[in-house]
Amino acid sequence: MKKLRYGMVGGGPESFIGEAHRKAIQLDALAELTAGCFSRSFEKCRITGDMVGIDPERCYASYEEMAKAEAAREDGIDFVVVVTPNASHYSICKAFLENGIHVSCDKPLCLEVEQAEELCRLAREKNLLFLVTYTYMGHVTAKHIRRYIASGKLGKIRTVMAEYPQGWLAREGEWGGKQGEWRCDPAQSGAVNCLGDLGTHVENAVAVLTGLKIKRVLARMDAVVPGRVLDDNDVVLVEYEGGATGCYWTSQFAIGHDNDLRVRIYGENGSILWSQETSEKVTVISAEGIITELHRGNIGIEPAAAAYGRLPSGHTEGWYEAMGNLYRSFTDCVYARKNGTFTESMIDFPTVEDGLEGVKFIHACLRSQANGNTWEEL
Amino acid sequence: MKKLRYGMVGGGPESFIGEAHRKAIQLDALAELTAGCFSRSFEKCRITGDMVGIDPERCYASYEEMAKAEAAREDGIDFVVVVTPNASHYSICKAFLENGIHVSCDKPLCLEVEQAEELCRLAREKNLLFLVTYTYMGHVTAKHIRRYIASGKLGKIRTVMAEYPQGWLAREGEWGGKQGEWRCDPAQSGAVNCLGDLGTHVENAVAVLTGLKIKRVLARMDAVVPGRVLDDNDVVLVEYEGGATGCYWTSQFAIGHDNDLRVRIYGENGSILWSQETSEKVTVISAEGIITELHRGNIGIEPAAAAYGRLPSGHTEGWYEAMGNLYRSFTDCVYARKNGTFTESMIDFPTVEDGLEGVKFIHACLRSQANGNTWEEL
Amino acid sequence: MKKLRYGMVGGGPESFIGEAHRKAIQLDALAELTAGCFSRSFEKCRITGDMVGIDPERCYASYEEMAKAEAAREDGIDFVVVVTPNASHYSICKAFLENGIHVSCDKPLCLEVEQAEELCRLAREKNLLFLVTYTYMGHVTAKHIRRYIASGKLGKIRTVMAEYPQGWLAREGEWGGKQGEWRCDPAQSGAVNCLGDLGTHVENAVAVLTGLKIKRVLARMDAVVPGRVLDDNDVVLVEYEGGATGCYWTSQFAIGHDNDLRVRIYGENGSILWSQETSEKVTVISAEGIITELHRGNIGIEPAAAAYGRLPSGHTEGWYEAMGNLYRSFTDCVYARKNGTFTESMIDFPTVEDGLEGVKFIHACLRSQANGNTWEEL
Amino acid sequence: MKKLRYGMVGGGPESFIGEAHRKAIQLDALAELTAGCFSRSFEKCRITGDMVGIDPERCYASYEEMAKAEAAREDGIDFVVVVTPNASHYSICKAFLENGIHVSCDKPLCLEVEQAEELCRLAREKNLLFLVTYTYMGHVTAKHIRRYIASGKLGKIRTVMAEYPQGWLAREGEWGGKQGEWRCDPAQSGAVNCLGDLGTHVENAVAVLTGLKIKRVLARMDAVVPGRVLDDNDVVLVEYEGGATGCYWTSQFAIGHDNDLRVRIYGENGSILWSQETSEKVTVISAEGIITELHRGNIGIEPAAAAYGRLPSGHTEGWYEAMGNLYRSFTDCVYARKNGTFTESMIDFPTVEDGLEGVKFIHACLRSQANGNTWEEL
Repeated sequence: MKKLRYGMVGGGPESFIGEAHRKAIQLDALAELTAGCFSRSFEKCRITGDMVGIDPERCYASYEEMAKAEAAREDGIDFVVVVTPNASHYSICKAFLENGIHVSCDKPLCLEVEQAEELCRLAREKNLLFLVTYTYMGHVTAKHIRRYIASGKLGKIRTVMAEYPQGWLAREGEWGGKQGEWRCDPAQSGAVNCLGDLGTHVENAVAVLTGLKIKRVLARMDAVVPGRVLDDNDVVLVEYEGGATGCYWTSQFAIGHDNDLRVRIYGENGSILWSQETSEKVTVISAEGIITELHRGNIGIEPAAAAYGRLPSGHTEGWYEAMGNLYRSFTDCVYARKNGTFTESMIDFPTVEDGLEGVKFIHACLRSQANGNTWEEL
Repeated sequence: MKKLRYGMVGGGPESFIGEAHRKAIQLDALAELTAGCFSRSFEKCRITGDMVGIDPERCYASYEEMAKAEAAREDGIDFVVVVTPNASHYSICKAFLENGIHVSCDKPLCLEVEQAEELCRLAREKNLLFLVTYTYMGHVTAKHIRRYIASGKLGKIRTVMAEYPQGWLAREGEWGGKQGEWRCDPAQSGAVNCLGDLGTHVENAVAVLTGLKIKRVLARMDAVVPGRVLDDNDVVLVEYEGGATGCYWTSQFAIGHDNDLRVRIYGENGSILWSQETSEKVTVISAEGIITELHRGNIGIEPAAAAYGRLPSGHTEGWYEAMGNLYRSFTDCVYARKNGTFTESMIDFPTVEDGLEGVKFIHACLRSQANGNTWEEL
Repeated sequence: MKKLRYGMVGGGPESFIGEAHRKAIQLDALAELTAGCFSRSFEKCRITGDMVGIDPERCYASYEEMAKAEAAREDGIDFVVVVTPNASHYSICKAFLENGIHVSCDKPLCLEVEQAEELCRLAREKNLLFLVTYTYMGHVTAKHIRRYIASGKLGKIRTVMAEYPQGWLAREGEWGGKQGEWRCDPAQSGAVNCLGDLGTHVENAVAVLTGLKIKRVLARMDAVVPGRVLDDNDVVLVEYEGGATGCYWTSQFAIGHDNDLRVRIYGENGSILWSQETSEKVTVISAEGIITELHRGNIGIEPAAAAYGRLPSGHTEGWYEAMGNLYRSFTDCVYARKNGTFTESMIDFPTVEDGLEGVKFIHACLRSQANGNTWEEL
Repeated sequence: MKKLRYGMVGGGPESFIGEAHRKAIQLDALAELTAGCFSRSFEKCRITGDMVGIDPERCYASYEEMAKAEAAREDGIDFVVVVTPNASHYSICKAFLENGIHVSCDKPLCLEVEQAEELCRLAREKNLLFLVTYTYMGHVTAKHIRRYIASGKLGKIRTVMAEYPQGWLAREGEWGGKQGEWRCDPAQSGAVNCLGDLGTHVENAVAVLTGLKIKRVLARMDAVVPGRVLDDNDVVLVEYEGGATGCYWTSQFAIGHDNDLRVRIYGENGSILWSQETSEKVTVISAEGIITELHRGNIGIEPAAAAYGRLPSGHTEGWYEAMGNLYRSFTDCVYARKNGTFTESMIDFPTVEDGLEGVKFIHACLRSQANGNTWEEL
């Protein structure tokens, strides 16, 4: 079968995440980049287009134009990758969905719950696939945990402690370059900074790993570093359907933490500890308290998760491989749609519905904070 | 100078903590056990008295009798060690204070705020020393952190994440033997279990290490393991005076955790990570994010803290040494009182005022939980 | 400038390492695969050629033919990647060098010292670049250590402890699939197994990181697992020029170790600890014994090393990125050769001379073992 | 039964190890110190006698006098603790054995193999107990490993990697105070420094944990730090009876290591990793490569080992407890001798025969080094 083609919106010369998506897709040569609207500046768009080697005529000045033009081509793109700041996700995704093109969009999905619901509705109506790139759920060990817990091995889950501290925005007067600047700017980031950037990763990681669904939250959100307008430290108490509880912490001034997403899951028959910075292993604790460290590649990793591994254990895989794994399942599904072999059970990636949960989570937290840290339903 | 003499209330044949205090005091031969009321059963009291080798006439049937008799003797005890279940701390401590005897009491200090306030008042009026044995603050590394932070090296503290999970009470129908039974029993433990046992350690550790004073709390307390009446999992959001925030987690069903008190402190100029199970080291992170692991015994440990070490670094010290360090400062102070050389600045141990904070903390949390997880002033 | 073109010898359908090289080169899109002799079976060669999408006419039945044909083409390959079993490296590399094509060859370089010397001579005479793919020296932290030590910060190095245990060949009667079978087979692997596969990595890692040159070795080589003919556990004592000493351990039956290359370097002014499985960090110890953990991406990483990073710290890089870094410098040099801008100081990868050291190391160890564990000059 | 009485030779005002033995014995109140010859200076002896509170008439000017006088008393000491520099161990131990007094002696046992053999012979003839205080084998986890391996769970042991690096003597011109000075001085330390101090611990640890008996050794011993006369870095290759191999490394200039005794044992059915600085846990790896971390106090610790624990898991035990455990078994045996209930199987501590192995090990290494690093039988 012919290779898939994809386009990209965002990912221009100063973007980090665009290049990261391109490398992740390229890792397994899953699809070929053939079109793009890489920047709001057409000049910058062209520079990137040149660099990545696409046909100049498929470098577009606007995403609207791109969506229409690509939809009209015989050899048009199979899917689009949206890697712009949060505030523009909604309208871009909408444009491609409306033109019948599958979408991959960075998280958080969009700013408003209504927007997210509309994207869900559109994807459903148009029968289109929609990946929200919660990168870390691509790790083999994360995929293992999901299957392990789903099989009931931990028993009923009692509590979840999850966190995602970073330290890169700890200093007053420093804004972390382009990456930090847009995140701290309400115009580009929406009403949240830290909770949108990190908190939604935590929310999604717990949802994916445990299968738990949040009922209500109580959030304490603070803008601590002098000069910040948006939150840079958040603690969220969580109640799940079925009675389990959780606590999520995110921070951008926790000096000493690089990118420290961790999830600890306590069930009636054991525990699971996982950290994305050491994602090559997972700690599994039995009901008797025996602590086992499973490595990616060990016997004991669920076969369906292990199958995503590219290298023998001890030959370290990392961020690109995790992202690549999301795209592996997504592109498999896109192929299958073209082939007519698609079934829902093939989906092994976070979808637009997961993205909706993230937006609901943010808004429930914002209400809780506005009301003086009350419990708010999702 | 002659060796100090001490008595003990509690610590009978089935007690773990009584023997632990005795060993800790004996480690540096700081004082001699010469009197006791080791059990409410006089027979058991006698058995322990025999075992530890005290004069049978100084084995007492009641603590009231003991307090009076010892106060009346020329060679009476210099201090008493109270290691009974929480509900009886107040009246026992009061009896000894009223008879002019210095007190060491296990934590939490007592059940009610008014009781704690009365003990504070009594100790002040009678000019008596009062140690509350928050064991872990005796570790050399804990003493180092306190001095390091007090010297301003972290700058303003922004947030504190502290936790104390254990897993020994995770199983339905199991009560952890005598230790667990009284803790889970409202009659002996008061209105809290986990929060009293573990939460007060967390509260005290953060207070001692950072010098921060709690302004208000928002607590979520749950009794999760089927059959528990009292809390076995708690999350407490904290606001300190001056605006810093914190989050404390304690649990008794977190399978895989033995006794995992951890404190992480994030300041504007760096961070400190400390874990009591690996108390031979402390992680210090600079403003630039450089992570340093200091070992007890390394250059760089504050000299006043290092002085408590008994063994070269790498020759591991543990729980007994931590407890012994509390008693070292306490007995130094008792000596100094006898000598007339005492000054307040000699106190390097948690006092009855620290104990009072713990009781206030518990009650504010109980109010918060009762009111649906509201903020409550301490 | 136009993209480089490369060819591959080996890397057919059942090969792991061929695909790994291809992915590593593709990571930064450094060169395009345009020719290959992927298998001794022409059918298998074609299958791989198809899979990777090269022109069928540039799928060759023999490497000799490929070397000649590609050398003759206008659009011939700029370099070849040799990923066959060890015994064939020499003649393949020789063929491409003789035809004026730059070479990248897997380690160990070849079987005999004379062969290695001839390859060195040929590369020099023909003025060709030659990369030997000691993967792990591509890690940013390895590049940091090399520069850190070269700058004299550790002072004179006193001793080096290095090891590379694996556990995958621990079981009698199991041969680790195709990968293990050829390694354990003298016909394909030469006179050594474990020492060639792992020992040469250790030898190279120490040479690269420290700059030390081995003077003599004393080796103890054992074939331990029943059925093994070649060594599967080796300890080598090392004396370096200048008087420092070292000890290297490699094993294939050390159950619990995946791919555990570790180097510990002790100098008069401090120490360095590095482990390839946790290559995102490096432990640096000062003369005063203060232990610092540097992360890839932290301030403190030598800028010339840090420049190889693709992702922010905490966004994990791994094996592919390390290999990709070797190719990044190699392809930079190949470009520069074409441009006429090449200088020796651009070389930041292990060369054919490093490969020669590895072969000498193996042979000195073999002599030592044959003579009853005597000291043998390299 | 009445408490045991013991005497001490060495352990005067500047001694570290004497006080350490006293604290360890006192931890469980196993015996009472009632006599001593604490220093070659009688004045210093008296000062220590006063400090520890023994009868001045039982402070002796010479160990010969002490041995005779104590043997003659009705209430004489039950055993003596010898904590002097190595060179004097032999004659002191001999004097007490000849006077019928049980002996505990610090390691290494003595300087010469003939001396060690004579002490073995004397202990046997006189039917006396003899503890050599290899502290680290007292750890609960060490006791667990010994039983675990003895029960055959690892299968045949294939290789052992053991090491004991320290960094305290890394600096030229610094001698580590009184502790370092005598160790580096041939007159007090004998022909070895590092190998005697650390190497014998390694030798004993491997012997105790695995039950393996050394057949021959090949040693490389170096005096590296400028000014050292005796060895400060040693690597010893080992062959055991039955064919397993080992490699031991010890160093005193390995900056960053405090007291880092580690043993890694690889068998045909799994592996064991143990480190004395983290002796509260042990890593056990199954034949399938599954890594388990057992904590002292966990289910899974051999009951006979677990019985030595004093505190619940997570309530850290350390050096004193390990040393105390050696004395616990030793004093049990001394009691049993007095009672007539002693049997050989009660011995759970390193004996004079273990001490003899250590002396033989040192001398075989010295011969190997003298002969240019040849294999030498023990």
